[in-house]
Amino acid sequence: MNVKIIVRVLGLLLVVEGVAMLLAFGISLIYKEYDQAAFLISSGLNIALGAGITYLTRNAKREIGRREGYIIVTLVWVVFSLFGSLPYVISGAIPNFTNAFFETISGFTTTGSSILNDIEALPHGILFWRSITQWLGGMGIIVLSLAILPVFGIGGMQLFMAEVPGPTPDRLSPRIRQTAKALWGIYLIFTIAETILLWIAGMELFDAVCHSFTTMATGGFSTKQASIAYWSSPAIQYIIVVFMFLAGTNFTLSYMALRGNFKRVFKDEEFKYYALFVLGFSLVIFTGLLISTHTGAELAFRDSLFQVVSVITTTGYVTVDYLKWTPVLTIFLFGLFFFGGSAGSTGGGLKIMRIVLLLKNSYYELRRMVHPNAVIPVKFNNHSVDSKIITNVLAFFMFYMVIFGASTIVFSFMEPDFESAMGAVATSLGNIGPGLGNVGPAETFFHITPAGKWFLSFLMLLGRLELFTVLVIFTPSFWKE
Amino acid sequence: MNVKIIVRVLGLLLVVEGVAMLLAFGISLIYKEYDQAAFLISSGLNIALGAGITYLTRNAKREIGRREGYIIVTLVWVVFSLFGSLPYVISGAIPNFTNAFFETISGFTTTGSSILNDIEALPHGILFWRSITQWLGGMGIIVLSLAILPVFGIGGMQLFMAEVPGPTPDRLSPRIRQTAKALWGIYLIFTIAETILLWIAGMELFDAVCHSFTTMATGGFSTKQASIAYWSSPAIQYIIVVFMFLAGTNFTLSYMALRGNFKRVFKDEEFKYYALFVLGFSLVIFTGLLISTHTGAELAFRDSLFQVVSVITTTGYVTVDYLKWTPVLTIFLFGLFFFGGSAGSTGGGLKIMRIVLLLKNSYYELRRMVHPNAVIPVKFNNHSVDSKIITNVLAFFMFYMVIFGASTIVFSFMEPDFESAMGAVATSLGNIGPGLGNVGPAETFFHITPAGKWFLSFLMLLGRLELFTVLVIFTPSFWKE
Repeated sequence: MNVKIIVRVLGLLLVVEGVAMLLAFGISLIYKEYDQAAFLISSGLNIALGAGITYLTRNAKREIGRREGYIIVTLVWVVFSLFGSLPYVISGAIPNFTNAFFETISGFTTTGSSILNDIEALPHGILFWRSITQWLGGMGIIVLSLAILPVFGIGGMQLFMAEVPGPTPDRLSPRIRQTAKALWGIYLIFTIAETILLWIAGMELFDAVCHSFTTMATGGFSTKQASIAYWSSPAIQYIIVVFMFLAGTNFTLSYMALRGNFKRVFKDEEFKYYALFVLGFSLVIFTGLLISTHTGAELAFRDSLFQVVSVITTTGYVTVDYLKWTPVLTIFLFGLFFFGGSAGSTGGGLKIMRIVLLLKNSYYELRRMVHPNAVIPVKFNNHSVDSKIITNVLAFFMFYMVIFGASTIVFSFMEPDFESAMGAVATSLGNIGPGLGNVGPAETFFHITPAGKWFLSFLMLLGRLELFTVLVIFTPSFWKE
Repeated sequence: MNVKIIVRVLGLLLVVEGVAMLLAFGISLIYKEYDQAAFLISSGLNIALGAGITYLTRNAKREIGRREGYIIVTLVWVVFSLFGSLPYVISGAIPNFTNAFFETISGFTTTGSSILNDIEALPHGILFWRSITQWLGGMGIIVLSLAILPVFGIGGMQLFMAEVPGPTPDRLSPRIRQTAKALWGIYLIFTIAETILLWIAGMELFDAVCHSFTTMATGGFSTKQASIAYWSSPAIQYIIVVFMFLAGTNFTLSYMALRGNFKRVFKDEEFKYYALFVLGFSLVIFTGLLISTHTGAELAFRDSLFQVVSVITTTGYVTVDYLKWTPVLTIFLFGLFFFGGSAGSTGGGLKIMRIVLLLKNSYYELRRMVHPNAVIPVKFNNHSVDSKIITNVLAFFMFYMVIFGASTIVFSFMEPDFESAMGAVATSLGNIGPGLGNVGPAETFFHITPAGKWFLSFLMLLGRLELFTVLVIFTPSFWKE
């Protein structure tokens, strides 16, 4: 194990986090609020520590193997969340460390669950920092899912290896750099475009920036306690729907679309199912809302589309309290907690690609039973999918469901209401944000016990890093030379 | 498609059902109650119709292929349930046909969910018929799971092919006959043994017979509204625990044990996990009950052991209303709704063997990620398991969870309470019996809407026939020549 390189990468990234804190410091200077010192101290600490570590490990061997990779990825999220809590604690915005850590890891994992009961009372620098943790988390996920995980061989991500721009790598680093450059460009373009559009539609510039950050990361932190319900403007809500949808799309496809290759996009099987699911599920809820409520058709349509896109992409914004819907619609929406965005997007959850592969394999299995001697491989984008990938995706699904079930049982020690426990676990593992019962869209996670908050934090991490990345570290064979 | 042989087999089995009804007729004669005519008419109808069909199809080709097999198996359960409802409807014990059908299919699928609100008011013939539907269902499942499904290649059942007594077959029939003979003998021996023991322990002979029928089938119908809670005698409850455990054990193992080969039994991996799960989960609930209630240690132990064995084996008897436990224990027990007995037992659900294979494969997948070039097959009973079996088991799990999720959503149209909907769907699909909320152990299924009852009936069938048997019939490729 090349420990030195692990420490070095973490050190370098601490500097990056420190620089991001300087941005928030800038905001706090503009608004002249009480959080200035907090950002200066936190940033200084991060940069000094990061720089020191980088200097001390300057002679580390530049080789990053598979095992170092797993550890780095997992530790990056943990370390970022630990140090990212500093501004909250030091400024006093969230004095309790457990709460601050929960809010920060909910940011970096782009979950969006919050312990804050009065968001509007916070200074702008803090609000900006909340949003930027999600935006950074989104950047991390793009690199992870399109450059690192395919090399690790995690759950079907290999299917996209050939499609990512940049050369196929022998080692990790050149590939990462190439991919990151190309895709972060798009991420940035989308963020800027959304900011401008939201601003034009009537949102204040500060809110527009923050919401663009958290939309593109499918994070879901808002600068308002009421989330997007604060803005009743249809234009604002539709703009956010469009960008949530984009954020839940494979960034490689957006890259191709921006280069004019629309044909490839509309031929992509995952994209087709993604669009189909969003439309189909929205129609179901739309019909249900039309029958069960007396709001107008446009509002019913907007509410259903917004909530479906928000949940499927695992963003977690709300424009309406879906717990007040007629129960069957709430239960239906909860079913969508187990979908998730496209592979290679910033969305969490099971992911559309995996669900399509699972459904196809199950359906093909029925055909295999009728024709036991025929070889019937699963096809995806017109290619036969290797059975190893299918096994891996199935193992992923199994882990996901077992972790969901077991965690619901464990968490119900801390929250002895079945629905709330299920909701909290599903929303954390899927990196969505709001849940059911007493962690519903009109509530926060403030009242959860400290043990419960640490437990949910771990689930967010697990879900965000596609389970395997974290779980593999806990196996004995990982530590055998 | 050899339609004639399908019709012929169904006709022959109708005669069998008619003969079984004669047994209930005998009971009604002994007790001189109002259900005598009902059994005579139903039995006559079954035997006449069955004999007629058998005669008309006497020249059917004796070849039963794979596709005929799927259809016969599915139709047997449907036709048995349709005709098996007659005694209820004709006697007026359950005048409503939907209710009568629900009660009958709940019998033949060995589920044990009931619409009856006053069981003690029923005549003895009807109570006996209820029990015998489950006992016959159990006999059907033994043949299905140990002789037919392995040939179909369903979900890991192939693993037992080599172990079942009798020659490996070219065609279905000789194998079925051999296996049935050997294993029904054990089924009968256990039923008689349990009857005698329950009788000695103080249960009335009639109740002892009925409960032995429904124990060995892991069915769960009782002759008392309060189920086994009616008998507070520890001896009776422990005897039932032992026989539920035996009914949830692979009957091939019991066959070996009765021939003195205990070594093989205790070396069997599924049996080891089965025993381990039962003990482990009972201990968890035992500890929970000790902390949260003030009943004595023996009662807490008995209650936890009884409920765990009853749920894991999918019997569904109760000695206590588990909804009154502290919520986390109820949720924990509900988690066990997704286990199920051993393969080759009369138990339903996912089955221990599948769960063990799934867990092993998921764990091995983590090892595969650390050592991507190593070939790491899943081992079961010291043999490498073919990857086709793993894929099949994983597809089974996927279907199970998707059907559970989708059905909960569909069923919540009929029962708009989330917990009740989940409970009803899980208990029907797993062939358990009682559920959660308003279908808990102290309630019945009487109040469910007719549409809901038909829906749950379909789920019972689906679960009982290992999903694939039924689902495969709905695929287009099944019907292509």
